[in-house]
Amino acid sequence: MKWQESIQRLKPLNGQYIIQAQGRLDSLTKPPGSLGVLENLAVQLASIYQTLEFSVDPVSSYVFVGDHGITEEGVSAFPSEVTTQMVYNFLQGGAAINVLSRNNRTALKVVDVGMKDTIDDDRLIHRKVKNGTNNFLLDKAMTKEEASEAIQVGFDLGVEEVEQGAKMLSIGEMGIGNTTASAAVTAYLLERSVDEMVGRGTGLNDEGLQHKKAIIQKAIDKHQLTTKDAVEALAAFGGLEIAAMTGMIVAAAYKQVPILLDGFNTGAAAVAAAHIHPITASYMIASHQSEEPGHKFMLKSLNLSPLLQLSLRLGEGTGAILSLPLIRSTQHLLQEMATFAEANVSEKN
Amino acid sequence: MKWQESIQRLKPLNGQYIIQAQGRLDSLTKPPGSLGVLENLAVQLASIYQTLEFSVDPVSSYVFVGDHGITEEGVSAFPSEVTTQMVYNFLQGGAAINVLSRNNRTALKVVDVGMKDTIDDDRLIHRKVKNGTNNFLLDKAMTKEEASEAIQVGFDLGVEEVEQGAKMLSIGEMGIGNTTASAAVTAYLLERSVDEMVGRGTGLNDEGLQHKKAIIQKAIDKHQLTTKDAVEALAAFGGLEIAAMTGMIVAAAYKQVPILLDGFNTGAAAVAAAHIHPITASYMIASHQSEEPGHKFMLKSLNLSPLLQLSLRLGEGTGAILSLPLIRSTQHLLQEMATFAEANVSEKN
Repeated sequence: MKWQESIQRLKPLNGQYIIQAQGRLDSLTKPPGSLGVLENLAVQLASIYQTLEFSVDPVSSYVFVGDHGITEEGVSAFPSEVTTQMVYNFLQGGAAINVLSRNNRTALKVVDVGMKDTIDDDRLIHRKVKNGTNNFLLDKAMTKEEASEAIQVGFDLGVEEVEQGAKMLSIGEMGIGNTTASAAVTAYLLERSVDEMVGRGTGLNDEGLQHKKAIIQKAIDKHQLTTKDAVEALAAFGGLEIAAMTGMIVAAAYKQVPILLDGFNTGAAAVAAAHIHPITASYMIASHQSEEPGHKFMLKSLNLSPLLQLSLRLGEGTGAILSLPLIRSTQHLLQEMATFAEANVSEKN
Repeated sequence: MKWQESIQRLKPLNGQYIIQAQGRLDSLTKPPGSLGVLENLAVQLASIYQTLEFSVDPVSSYVFVGDHGITEEGVSAFPSEVTTQMVYNFLQGGAAINVLSRNNRTALKVVDVGMKDTIDDDRLIHRKVKNGTNNFLLDKAMTKEEASEAIQVGFDLGVEEVEQGAKMLSIGEMGIGNTTASAAVTAYLLERSVDEMVGRGTGLNDEGLQHKKAIIQKAIDKHQLTTKDAVEALAAFGGLEIAAMTGMIVAAAYKQVPILLDGFNTGAAAVAAAHIHPITASYMIASHQSEEPGHKFMLKSLNLSPLLQLSLRLGEGTGAILSLPLIRSTQHLLQEMATFAEANVSEKN
């Protein structure tokens, strides 16, 4: 199916399960509301799955990889070759996301949707749309057709994954330069200033940060986009991995499973997805509040509250997997706790 | 050993392992500092265990139970009988802490250190010091000897647990009325106003909250304590389970293992422990920021940052166990990630 066709079939959450889940939470042997934000999460999960007897497992965790032509302008603290080097690290199991996936019983899949280099290795999922984006200060990062094709990559993988049994999808990314693309896309779509949306990425100093802001402002001024079309914004600024994540978010909403977001770059993909259709936001779980300052504006626009606030700024889907035990615990608490009646416990005075 | 004897043998953290752990973190394939507060936690754990190759498992989770005479004054949203009813719920496996312990591979032990009722069940650890505290508006909650005895209960259990192989201790509590005792103890020890330290507990309404504040202020005025002695404060206001948790914190510091705190009541035990000896705070991990407003002042006085902010107000050690996967992940990241050199990844420009 073309991802565009799925959009008109997206469904809002079912209010019946919101009420059922809240009713069960209030019957459990604990002070009403005392599980805090986990109670909201329990309600969201029940309404996505349309049952209180859901399972969030198995979870599939995807890392989408793409390169960014804008790195030519010196917008990152790390050299562009690190994208490829880190993909080798993923394949060898040495990166943070490998450690977290292994220790949290989560399948990890790495997708080349837009690396400059090509790695001939069967453990990598090969769906390259283009060998890195163009330098978006000089040209559009890619064509609208390429952006749409990258969205289709994530959409197809997401649909397939759910049809093969995944009950939750988790997304992350690798791509030196991608916080620059994400900041540009979301400053434009959310009508926020570059001062609000641009941060230090992997660790720019003050001078580097000012330079990154200036480059992004110049590019926004140059491209003169006229609509708030997400595909157009992704085409103008990139990146291929961000577009693919947008596609996987659309797939999750279409297949009615939760999609676990990571930090700033998955946040940009989420903002793009919500611009394609706002219902997609009902299926999103915000795993954490990134150290990147623009992230809070993304989450606010999506009406999402983050589960964790750990000042992370690593990407790869690490914040998503760090939050996964809280999501599993929420499921278990909702389903396994005794009620006041079952346990013969007196209710509130 | 008497708990008092252990105090002069407490050791500060070893700076050598702080430097070693930070050095390893900076060599791992991630932007420097990008694991945020988990990096601080990794350094703390390495310096407590005096090795980078530590294991936080097995973890033992204790729930200490006591009753509070002050409930006669109507300071809680739940009736006093709920303490006993919830202990039955713990023994039958239906409470939130049971669900979380089961699903997070953690041994759970429940200790009667001061219940009004007596439950004849071998699954409960029987260390009753007193059948509930006295109403501290009329009298001291207990004698200094009883407070010291309750501290000894937690100290002995903690020492024994570590000697039997536990690598981390986690504490929680049950006792209707205990946020009233905790607020009184810490308002006194930290020289904070009752307005700052007193909250709604399990769910008081506005009127109930004002009444609770008035009772606590009256009691503080009545007892006229003259020193900041923690044992004296625990004796004046209670409770037996809070004193026992103070003892387990002292045991963790003495045996040099981390002690995982829960919310407001374990926070009061931690404040008491830090008044007995400030070095105990080096061994504490703050699992979460409770919804109870006074908790932030407790953590501030201990110089601790909470791992989670979920607006929890349940107790039982639930926030502690919810944070446990983050602690385990921190261990795995420190120990299992590849270094830049191992993975041939270029470092920062």
